[in-house]
Amino acid sequence: MSIRIVITGGTFDKHYDEIRGSLTFKDSHLPEILKFVRCSVPVEVELNQLIDSLDMHTSNRVRVLESCRRAPEERIIVTHGTDTMVETAAVLGEAQLAKTIVLTGAMVPYIFNNSDAVFNLGCAVAAVQLLPHGVYVVMNGRVFRWDSVRKNRELGVFEETGR
Amino acid sequence: MSIRIVITGGTFDKHYDEIRGSLTFKDSHLPEILKFVRCSVPVEVELNQLIDSLDMHTSNRVRVLESCRRAPEERIIVTHGTDTMVETAAVLGEAQLAKTIVLTGAMVPYIFNNSDAVFNLGCAVAAVQLLPHGVYVVMNGRVFRWDSVRKNRELGVFEETGR
Amino acid sequence: MSIRIVITGGTFDKHYDEIRGSLTFKDSHLPEILKFVRCSVPVEVELNQLIDSLDMHTSNRVRVLESCRRAPEERIIVTHGTDTMVETAAVLGEAQLAKTIVLTGAMVPYIFNNSDAVFNLGCAVAAVQLLPHGVYVVMNGRVFRWDSVRKNRELGVFEETGR
Amino acid sequence: MSIRIVITGGTFDKHYDEIRGSLTFKDSHLPEILKFVRCSVPVEVELNQLIDSLDMHTSNRVRVLESCRRAPEERIIVTHGTDTMVETAAVLGEAQLAKTIVLTGAMVPYIFNNSDAVFNLGCAVAAVQLLPHGVYVVMNGRVFRWDSVRKNRELGVFEETGR
Repeated sequence: MSIRIVITGGTFDKHYDEIRGSLTFKDSHLPEILKFVRCSVPVEVELNQLIDSLDMHTSNRVRVLESCRRAPEERIIVTHGTDTMVETAAVLGEAQLAKTIVLTGAMVPYIFNNSDAVFNLGCAVAAVQLLPHGVYVVMNGRVFRWDSVRKNRELGVFEETGR
Repeated sequence: MSIRIVITGGTFDKHYDEIRGSLTFKDSHLPEILKFVRCSVPVEVELNQLIDSLDMHTSNRVRVLESCRRAPEERIIVTHGTDTMVETAAVLGEAQLAKTIVLTGAMVPYIFNNSDAVFNLGCAVAAVQLLPHGVYVVMNGRVFRWDSVRKNRELGVFEETGR
Repeated sequence: MSIRIVITGGTFDKHYDEIRGSLTFKDSHLPEILKFVRCSVPVEVELNQLIDSLDMHTSNRVRVLESCRRAPEERIIVTHGTDTMVETAAVLGEAQLAKTIVLTGAMVPYIFNNSDAVFNLGCAVAAVQLLPHGVYVVMNGRVFRWDSVRKNRELGVFEETGR
Repeated sequence: MSIRIVITGGTFDKHYDEIRGSLTFKDSHLPEILKFVRCSVPVEVELNQLIDSLDMHTSNRVRVLESCRRAPEERIIVTHGTDTMVETAAVLGEAQLAKTIVLTGAMVPYIFNNSDAVFNLGCAVAAVQLLPHGVYVVMNGRVFRWDSVRKNRELGVFEETGR
C-alpha cells in the first residue's frame, strides 16, 4: 500500500533566510525527514506548491484537489499551513473522492529543534492507512473529520466542533 | 479518549552516560517529548521498567501484561526495545484483553539528532486511537498484527510474516 | 578567571512565537546552552536587553557600555544582533575600558537545528580569555578588531576592512 | 591564515550503529559541522584515524605527530578521545614543533542533541589562532597547556595540575 504526500508548504516546511532574517520557503524537508525516520511504507512525494496558508486562494485549493483526484494512490497526505487547513479540507471533503485524505502540518517549523512536524507526520502516516475513505485533519495526536474541526487561534490548537 | 503509555525502556529511551561513555538508562524522555510535540490527546505515562529488551524475561513481560490488564484506559501504547518486541507482543496478544495495545520503539535512541523515536510515537498515537481491540506492532510507518510480524535483524526493519 | 556575558538579544536569542508564526524574543537561551556544553569556566550571565539589533539606538548602546564599565569582570562577552554589531563595537571601543570585550552573535537563531550560535559562543569564550584588552568581533571562526570589521550584508559574512 | 584539523576519532565522532545498537565509527562529522556553523576561516580537514582513544597506542600517537610535523599549516587542531587526550598532547608537546597545536574533543558525541562537540570546536578554532606556538588542550571553555592538565574521570572534566 503506497502513500502519496502532496506538499503545499505551510509552517511545516518554513526555511530560515539568514540574509533577510525571516522565515520563507526554499525546498521541502519531507524527503530528508522520510529518510531519517526510516519510513518503510512506500511514499511518493509531490511538490504541489510552497506557500503560506494565509496566501491560499481558491485556485491554490483547486490545485490541491486536482492532485488528489489524479493521484494513482488511494491514500494521500496533504501537508498544509495551519491557518486555513480547515478551508482546504472542506474543498477536498465536498469533492467526495473515493480516497482517504489526511491533512497535517506543524505549529512550529521542522527546522526548529522543538518542532511538532515529525510527530504530526507520524500520526498522519498511520492515520491515512487506517481510516476509511474521507477527508481528515490530523494534528498533535488528534484525528478530526473535515466537517467538525476548527483551529482555535488564541490557543494554537485544533478542536472539535459540533457538525 | 485517554491513552496510557506503558514505558519499558529499549533503544527509544537510551541515555548517554558521559562518564562511562556508554548507552544506559536514567529516566524516560516520554514526558518531555509529549510536551514539545504539543500532544493534545490526554496521556497517562507509566514507568513500568527501564531495560534493554534483550534483558526481558518472562517476569518482565508479565509485568507489562499486568499493567495493561489493570489500566483504566482501553487504549495503550507500550514502548519497548526492538529486539524482543515481537515476543512481548505475543504475550499480550495471547491474553486477549478487550483493549487496543500498540507496541512501538525506535531503531535509534531519541537523544540522537537523527532518531526515529518521535515519528514512531506519532504513528503509535494515531494507530492506538483508530485500531480495533487487539495487539499491534507499529514501527517506521507500518502497522502489523502481533501474530504476523518479525524483526529482520540484518536489515534492522520489521516485516510481515504469513500467519 | 570569571567571564561576564552581557545579553542584548539579536538573532542568537530569537524565539518562535507559534501563535503569531513569527520570530520574537522571550527569554535568553544562554543559561541552557552553557549547561549542556558543560562550560567549566565560571560565567556570570546578565540580561541587559532583548532586542533586534536594527532597533538599537544610542541609548541602548550606552546601556551596554554601562554594563561593561561597572562589571567586576575584566573579560566580557556581549551577544548582539549582527546587523549593527559593528556600531555597538565602536561605542565600546572608543570608551577604551581596561577590559577585553568580545561581541558575538549568530546568523541563524539558536533554536534552529543548523544554527551557528553554539559554535560562535565557543569561539567567543576562548577568545575573550586569550585576547589582550580591547574590543573585538568574533563571528564564524574569525576574530576582528572593532575598528577593522564590517558586515557584508549580501553574503551574510563579516569581513576585514583596512583601518 | 589557514587551519588544519587532524581527525583521530574519539567520542566527538562516534556514530550509532543501529543494527548492533552500539556506538562505533563510520565517517567524521567535521566537514558537515564546519559547513553549518558557517566557519569562514579556511580549514583543511585530514582524516588521520578513527579510533577510540582507549585504543591509542604509541604507533597511533606517532601517526598524529607525523601529520602535525609535515602539515604546511602552522596552526593545527587535533580532535581526540578524552580518555588519553593528555597522553597524546604530551607526545606532541615533547616534540617541540614550531607550531600551535590544540587538542579538543567531546564528552558527548556530536550526534546527540545535547553534545558539547560544536562548542568545543568553536573554542579550539579561536584558541588555535590566538595562542603562541605550543601544545594545548581546549575543553569545555578552558585552555590548558599540555604539561599542566589531567582528566578527572570521576567528574568527567579536565582540570589544571601543578607542573
